[in-house]
Amino acid sequence: MTTSRTEAFDAVDVIVAKRDGKVLTDAQIDWVIDAYTRGVVAEEQMAALNMAILLNGMTRAEISRWTAAMIASGERMDFSGLSRPTSDKHSTGGVGDKITLPLAPLVAVFDVAVPQLSGRGLGHTGGTLDKLESIPGWRAALTNDEMMAQLEHLGAVICQAGSGLAPADRKLYALRDVTGTVEAIPLIASSIMSKKIAEGTGALVLDVKVGSGAFMKDLDRARELARTMVDLGTDAGVRTVALLTDMSTPLGLTAGNALEVRESVEVLAGGGPRDVVDLTVALAVEMLAAAHKPVGEDEVRAALADGRAMDVWNRMIEAQEGDPHAELPWATETQDVVAPADGVLTRLDAYDIGIAAWRLGAGRARREDPVQAGAGVVMHAKPGDTVRKGQPLLTLHTDTPEKFGRALEALDGAFDVTAGAGFTPTPLVLDRLSGF
Amino acid sequence: MTTSRTEAFDAVDVIVAKRDGKVLTDAQIDWVIDAYTRGVVAEEQMAALNMAILLNGMTRAEISRWTAAMIASGERMDFSGLSRPTSDKHSTGGVGDKITLPLAPLVAVFDVAVPQLSGRGLGHTGGTLDKLESIPGWRAALTNDEMMAQLEHLGAVICQAGSGLAPADRKLYALRDVTGTVEAIPLIASSIMSKKIAEGTGALVLDVKVGSGAFMKDLDRARELARTMVDLGTDAGVRTVALLTDMSTPLGLTAGNALEVRESVEVLAGGGPRDVVDLTVALAVEMLAAAHKPVGEDEVRAALADGRAMDVWNRMIEAQEGDPHAELPWATETQDVVAPADGVLTRLDAYDIGIAAWRLGAGRARREDPVQAGAGVVMHAKPGDTVRKGQPLLTLHTDTPEKFGRALEALDGAFDVTAGAGFTPTPLVLDRLSGF
Repeated sequence: MTTSRTEAFDAVDVIVAKRDGKVLTDAQIDWVIDAYTRGVVAEEQMAALNMAILLNGMTRAEISRWTAAMIASGERMDFSGLSRPTSDKHSTGGVGDKITLPLAPLVAVFDVAVPQLSGRGLGHTGGTLDKLESIPGWRAALTNDEMMAQLEHLGAVICQAGSGLAPADRKLYALRDVTGTVEAIPLIASSIMSKKIAEGTGALVLDVKVGSGAFMKDLDRARELARTMVDLGTDAGVRTVALLTDMSTPLGLTAGNALEVRESVEVLAGGGPRDVVDLTVALAVEMLAAAHKPVGEDEVRAALADGRAMDVWNRMIEAQEGDPHAELPWATETQDVVAPADGVLTRLDAYDIGIAAWRLGAGRARREDPVQAGAGVVMHAKPGDTVRKGQPLLTLHTDTPEKFGRALEALDGAFDVTAGAGFTPTPLVLDRLSGF
Repeated sequence: MTTSRTEAFDAVDVIVAKRDGKVLTDAQIDWVIDAYTRGVVAEEQMAALNMAILLNGMTRAEISRWTAAMIASGERMDFSGLSRPTSDKHSTGGVGDKITLPLAPLVAVFDVAVPQLSGRGLGHTGGTLDKLESIPGWRAALTNDEMMAQLEHLGAVICQAGSGLAPADRKLYALRDVTGTVEAIPLIASSIMSKKIAEGTGALVLDVKVGSGAFMKDLDRARELARTMVDLGTDAGVRTVALLTDMSTPLGLTAGNALEVRESVEVLAGGGPRDVVDLTVALAVEMLAAAHKPVGEDEVRAALADGRAMDVWNRMIEAQEGDPHAELPWATETQDVVAPADGVLTRLDAYDIGIAAWRLGAGRARREDPVQAGAGVVMHAKPGDTVRKGQPLLTLHTDTPEKFGRALEALDGAFDVTAGAGFTPTPLVLDRLSGF
């Protein structure tokens, strides 16, 4: 036994209980998370426990307690001093998913505060902070006081999550990443929700992505994850709702940091691709309703059309020392991918586009890697569009043209152009689950 | 990713394959064992893989390859230069199981060499080396040359297994011990068999214990373990047979190091408790048959009765600098446990006796703990015996009388004395599985 005799439990007993399909007690869960954070439960013991959780599952009560224990490992924020209610959004991650950028200022227009504590990207989906950092001068790191002041003053902040929130989760996530235990729904749900609950938001809208470009490839698993997270939020007193949304094809026409900021600004200017606008509006309506400030869809759309959301955006960027009017960086090199035939674009695969953008320099393979602000993929057609042979379908952007080869490999088989085929569009919102 | 780019596999892919119920390829198994031995696969990764193996199982081919990979991690011994065939025995561990001590010299009488590479005890079952080390002067560590010479000259050696045999297993066993993955049959079987196959024995008899005092509490699981080990031996060209034997009550009348040596010497002198004699003879018959030197049971018994086995024993102890005629140590303190009523002793629990002996000082809780040579439990009755109220049933021995309290706690409920009840003895040998 490696644990000290003054510990309340032995790690092996906790592992064996879950291995044998038992329900862990509250005291076991509290202890194992705390002892892991203190280094008393070793990495290899937590790895074995995670695998047992992945294969044997957890009850709703166990997941709720596990999440509470992770929250208890760190600090909790408190927005109750603000003059307006708070409502947050979390996306499980998709390709071209820049929705947070227009959404936060849009919701703020209606006197609901949006505390978006975000992260950087890893793998084929981009990170919100990476996108905003392509704006000259903008800084992601705020003190708690700065964040609170900006929320009170402007109603919206997108900044780096402090390291004090759920530190057990950070340690656990790094472990899961190397031990094949990322995919456990109880662990995914508690990881996301521990941070969101610790952050102190009063309401939360989850955008659970489904499809090739998403973490969850099929609707049933995505629905199970959504249900688990909605239950966790509800159990913790957060008004929580989830939309399950399509991620079989990228959102909008861009995947890459500055490319996505440009597209977001188009949306804030009343234009932009229809799917980005529709999802931004749908999520804003949900966030407002969850914060007890219901606003109709038309009224929300009007705030994009008349520049009110753009006003908040400009002030939000300036408050974090960014220049909202500065020219955004462009990559130095581009290369087109053209349509191989006349016909209808019937498929444009989100995962493949995400991998291509990542390989062009928009994403990172390791946490310490830099990203290129201008790199990524611009799409010139979306599924359902008619295209002509030789027309550019995609333009690849990078500062490092030696990366074109590997990006093009990722795009091999990424789309279908079909002559005369019927095309049935996938709805953007596939399902909705509410905890209230 | 933490693995270097020159590795053949990524540990996460191997873990995920087993997690998802897939059969690992030979190349994956070879790599993961080798990379774990080299430290490239981290402890937490192997812990997650072990838990996935425990919960999802392995095919016969996977277990066989896993075992071969562990053998390949270290040196192999070669007994082909000996003038006689080799036959070894392995017990999965029981309370009062001193069978190796009379068995090795007994088999050697019939010109079959017994290379018993043994270990020390951990937990409630004693270790063969701990028992022999209660003999003044006896030393467990031999060089390979010394071992080979003793085998050729005397036909039997009981010594410490060298650290060169299956080093991957030693690392893996320490990991399993702290991660709740000891109980996986593929891992137990490959751990035992990798050492026995690497040791180079031509024939092997497995004594798989079943019952409260054994690692396997029920017959079905024990049979599955036995089958798996017999298959592994057979696949590796070792003539392997398994007896499943009862461990619901201790073997013989003693549990403890010097106490068990004394009882073994009684058996070698033609006396001793009937169960110890019967099992020693049964295993000797199997070992001789497996080595293509079949000897009848009566002839084997004769070698105990006429002193031939004792002669080998005495020479074996002397060859390792022990004095076979020296007085063995006695503990300084004793305490009796008496029969609570007149009646028949219908149950005497092996596990409880094992724990009591352990707590009295016969065993160790950590690998580095010392053991007391004289400590343990002497039984004055076995199940089926008639006892009278107040008669001593057990005598506890220790040098540290403060340990009596905890030992007596372990014995609470350890036996039943029933007036006039019918008693059906459990057979000693419950089943037999042969690979040839």
